[in-house]
Amino acid sequence: MKIALVSTGGTIEKTYDQYAQVLANRVSILDVMLAALELRGIEITRVALMNKDSLEMDDNDHDLIADTVGGLNSDHDGIVIVHGTDRLANSGERILERLGTVTVPIVLTGAMRPYALRNTDATQNLTEALLAVQLLQPGVYVSMHNRVLQFPGVIKDEDEGTFRIESISSS
Amino acid sequence: MKIALVSTGGTIEKTYDQYAQVLANRVSILDVMLAALELRGIEITRVALMNKDSLEMDDNDHDLIADTVGGLNSDHDGIVIVHGTDRLANSGERILERLGTVTVPIVLTGAMRPYALRNTDATQNLTEALLAVQLLQPGVYVSMHNRVLQFPGVIKDEDEGTFRIESISSS
Amino acid sequence: MKIALVSTGGTIEKTYDQYAQVLANRVSILDVMLAALELRGIEITRVALMNKDSLEMDDNDHDLIADTVGGLNSDHDGIVIVHGTDRLANSGERILERLGTVTVPIVLTGAMRPYALRNTDATQNLTEALLAVQLLQPGVYVSMHNRVLQFPGVIKDEDEGTFRIESISSS
Amino acid sequence: MKIALVSTGGTIEKTYDQYAQVLANRVSILDVMLAALELRGIEITRVALMNKDSLEMDDNDHDLIADTVGGLNSDHDGIVIVHGTDRLANSGERILERLGTVTVPIVLTGAMRPYALRNTDATQNLTEALLAVQLLQPGVYVSMHNRVLQFPGVIKDEDEGTFRIESISSS
Repeated sequence: MKIALVSTGGTIEKTYDQYAQVLANRVSILDVMLAALELRGIEITRVALMNKDSLEMDDNDHDLIADTVGGLNSDHDGIVIVHGTDRLANSGERILERLGTVTVPIVLTGAMRPYALRNTDATQNLTEALLAVQLLQPGVYVSMHNRVLQFPGVIKDEDEGTFRIESISSS
Repeated sequence: MKIALVSTGGTIEKTYDQYAQVLANRVSILDVMLAALELRGIEITRVALMNKDSLEMDDNDHDLIADTVGGLNSDHDGIVIVHGTDRLANSGERILERLGTVTVPIVLTGAMRPYALRNTDATQNLTEALLAVQLLQPGVYVSMHNRVLQFPGVIKDEDEGTFRIESISSS
Repeated sequence: MKIALVSTGGTIEKTYDQYAQVLANRVSILDVMLAALELRGIEITRVALMNKDSLEMDDNDHDLIADTVGGLNSDHDGIVIVHGTDRLANSGERILERLGTVTVPIVLTGAMRPYALRNTDATQNLTEALLAVQLLQPGVYVSMHNRVLQFPGVIKDEDEGTFRIESISSS
Repeated sequence: MKIALVSTGGTIEKTYDQYAQVLANRVSILDVMLAALELRGIEITRVALMNKDSLEMDDNDHDLIADTVGGLNSDHDGIVIVHGTDRLANSGERILERLGTVTVPIVLTGAMRPYALRNTDATQNLTEALLAVQLLQPGVYVSMHNRVLQFPGVIKDEDEGTFRIESISSS
């Protein structure tokens, strides 16, 4: 299967700047993560679109992500998008709005704790997204923390530190 | 979703005995692995069935695994079996033979390199199996290395260190 | 040997707050670090004095650290102090000023990258300090990055991200 | 300081062969370990002498190690030897026998659990040896598990999985 892997930044890709003493989006570490996985089900096209904390994304960014997905849609069997969690749902909804129907599975994912940390959830979430994109029907999804949810209607659950379906309390 | 997680041992669970200076199946480390994952899609029933290097499994072991799956089938939405790779395919085929049709997804997985190692594939494979079991149709599968294959007809590819469909060369 | 291990916070002990999305001094993770080491040369007395980013330390804090060391001096064979690097040298000089001569080795250490990060230098530095304190003559030292330097006259080298002797360029 | 780092193999350098399903001495992983440390106190000369499980060492090997140390003695400030623990003490005693007096610190170290394992003691022991060699007086030592012991008279304590002084029970 041909899968496009689009990176946009987010917590998952934050690295530590020991001089400024902060975690920030400086370089893409997705390729380091990929090198640690054995990927025999898919062939990946890497698209390094942007590297932003999603709190700094604006409407133009969401449009650009949606349009990039639209361009990749026709010659791939699926698309995985790595995204900051704070505005991941905005991009998910925007993809649906601008593309109408999608013909392949489109899976957004991210992390609550950067890959740079020992106790990161980045590896789990990327692993899941790269499998989910092979098994799902066409549609737009978030895959994270061992759960796949379909857009529209997905929101970030700030208290639980994960995603859930709107107006249904997470268990 | 209610998932039964059956452990039978295998390379994935081998730990290092510093006195005997060998890797061996002594304790189940599946619970350590689970504690490092955020599992929000499933509720797990742990079944610690045996802890064997699968090279030491005989027909009775394969029957016991198949019958255990048969017993768990009715009151779970899916079953994940952690198994040594050398005889994983034997258990996969045996489950199909003894159960006939299965009504939930049954996903076997394992590892080429124990969880105890830095460069293990155990975490990737367990993560994938726990997601695949939520997304697949009823059937018996192996999920490993970012690829899901359905029984019957799956064999271990010794040269590649993974699984493949019989008589079709892996790419 | 009886060693007092005094923690004051600093980068080494910062953990990630996934809600505030920052690294901060919240809990002491020194005990987690100690549990991962095999310590057969020393017997440790843990003194959890404070948990501060050293940029927030003031004169009272440096005095408190010096006086705590003074109190531990008589019934221990050595003292290790875990400290933020930004003001580590201030505490080192203050200990010398307030105690005059010291009768046991006093070793300060810290980290440029928190223990919570994959690529931390915390484990290396703590390991070194716990050995150096057994081998050094009485005096006040910083032990970090495979190098031991003696106070007075040690300063942080901001460009290199380590410590050096004042007015001598690091190589 | 100029330090020679001599590798001879041992558990510390064992890697996992996923086809033979055993841990074995195949490649030197010391350089991987060194790359993960910040070494600002020493300049290292790497000497890859052999890569043997020390249980397979014979008298010729111990002589070769002693003579190699003898050759490096004059133009280095210290020597660190990475060695299998089972016959580490034999090499330590042999160095003393063949060299008589030594003019620099010679520090042997190893590991009970290979670097390839998550819970290895290899990094701790190498870190300690690379610091101890800077702080010790001339002599032959083993540095391991936060304790430095001087030859002659050091033996492996099989029950405790570490080293101790002969005829004195470890505490």
